[in-house]
Amino acid sequence: MNLLKNKKVCIIGLGLMGGAYATGLRKLSPEAIFAYDHNPETIESALIDGTIDRGESNESFVGELLKDSYLIISCLYPQLTVDFFKRHMNELMPGAIITDITGVKGIIVRELLPYLREDLDFIMGHPMAGSEKEGYGNATDSIFKGRNYILIPTSKNKPENVDFIKSIVDALGFINIVETTPENHDQKIAFTSQLCHVIACALIDCEDDLKISDYEGGSFSDLTRIAMINTALWPELFIANQEKLIEQIDKFESSMQAMRKMILDSDDEALKATLTGVRQKRVVMEIDRQNKAKKYEVTHRNKN
Amino acid sequence: MNLLKNKKVCIIGLGLMGGAYATGLRKLSPEAIFAYDHNPETIESALIDGTIDRGESNESFVGELLKDSYLIISCLYPQLTVDFFKRHMNELMPGAIITDITGVKGIIVRELLPYLREDLDFIMGHPMAGSEKEGYGNATDSIFKGRNYILIPTSKNKPENVDFIKSIVDALGFINIVETTPENHDQKIAFTSQLCHVIACALIDCEDDLKISDYEGGSFSDLTRIAMINTALWPELFIANQEKLIEQIDKFESSMQAMRKMILDSDDEALKATLTGVRQKRVVMEIDRQNKAKKYEVTHRNKN
Repeated sequence: MNLLKNKKVCIIGLGLMGGAYATGLRKLSPEAIFAYDHNPETIESALIDGTIDRGESNESFVGELLKDSYLIISCLYPQLTVDFFKRHMNELMPGAIITDITGVKGIIVRELLPYLREDLDFIMGHPMAGSEKEGYGNATDSIFKGRNYILIPTSKNKPENVDFIKSIVDALGFINIVETTPENHDQKIAFTSQLCHVIACALIDCEDDLKISDYEGGSFSDLTRIAMINTALWPELFIANQEKLIEQIDKFESSMQAMRKMILDSDDEALKATLTGVRQKRVVMEIDRQNKAKKYEVTHRNKN
Repeated sequence: MNLLKNKKVCIIGLGLMGGAYATGLRKLSPEAIFAYDHNPETIESALIDGTIDRGESNESFVGELLKDSYLIISCLYPQLTVDFFKRHMNELMPGAIITDITGVKGIIVRELLPYLREDLDFIMGHPMAGSEKEGYGNATDSIFKGRNYILIPTSKNKPENVDFIKSIVDALGFINIVETTPENHDQKIAFTSQLCHVIACALIDCEDDLKISDYEGGSFSDLTRIAMINTALWPELFIANQEKLIEQIDKFESSMQAMRKMILDSDDEALKATLTGVRQKRVVMEIDRQNKAKKYEVTHRNKN
């Protein structure tokens, strides 16, 4: 794979996600991988293990990396992403392509894109991958394998640059690239990701028995694994997507209350009808998911 | 393993769970495995593949199996369990040991145990294992491996019979046998199992996009796998444990509403404090779970 031949890449924020990108991008033979992270120890580790070729932990000198970087992968939290690029707007290489990983896009659309230099191309992306283990020490590009990637192009993005990002994402091992609008992204993510995290956290918040796993058959662990949550990131994501998240919480709560009433009323018939509908929907969703995985396998088998 | 040497076992209800028991118990060398199931095709399959030695699908003749069975494993739904043993009380072998798998125990305690013949020993159990794939065709004793087993002995159970059931459960591959009261069982299960199923179903019930998996990173699938639910069994379990389940739903809903308010108020500090507490609790629960798994491994390595 020579997608990045003769090109320098810079990763901003070398945590779990940034580290995973660095590891995966190395296989695409870039001329060099640079990284900025505010933690000097992270940069030192990444230089020692050869994940990056050059690094910087002093933000004052990050311009030295940016001025030569054709592709920038921003792996910062949402507000930090906005602030970082506003601060370093004039240090970026002419015509550079920037992409990000932030879990909400409204804030990027409102607070960053209107201020972007005309020659730069900021292509919003959202790799639907992660781990309850945080930080560079846990970074591996295996977290990308078989995952969804949401691409959120705007009318300002150059089609050839969008295709370039798609090729990279595909090469990193993502299984399914979905294109959508910022509005739709934030609405869907409020449901599939943020609401699920709120539920998992509420389940743990309301239970005080620390030995509760004595009484579980797997469901409880599956529902609450994501409650081992990144406590710095998620409050920001929840609040940045407040309006859409509240909407999804209320939608879920209304189904919860309907089922509560059926249970309280011993309404066996209504429960059966609801669960039958639920089972059918979930089976259809599962088949759709598995078909995407199969399609990916077939496509990639044919490539080799 | 000769735990069942010279003993005949009878399984009542040869579905996913009954079939798993039959497969697992075979390895403990019983003299014979009998089974009753209302579906003649199930009995035929199990006879053909050698999972059982003798079977019956006509309930009128089940006495023929029961009169020789030292151990009865009841794998019926709660109300059916009560009804079946009331109907066949006088056909059971003197001194027989009966155990069950029902997910709620209050109904057994109230509606069956007071009517039990004095010489019989009914030892309540709850294997915390299952699958979203139902029926005998999907039965395998691998579903027991590494799982919890809840034992709910009463003062009427003979200690040597309780030990016998424990040995069997251990031999079947369960990792952790917890003893508790019917009251506590039903309360804990309302939380770890029933509430989790209600939540998973509500999440699917409130979403109409059948291609929603395009936008997910794994959390949504993990939280909703159990929504591929057995629609005949779960309404009965929910209603049979109504009071305790409603209590758990309300406890969860109160945490949901508290988090909703923090998000609505943009209360970053409160969210951080809540998520920090949640993360700490969930990590402690995880360590407890993993320690149990390790302890089991060590014990069983020493046995071999």
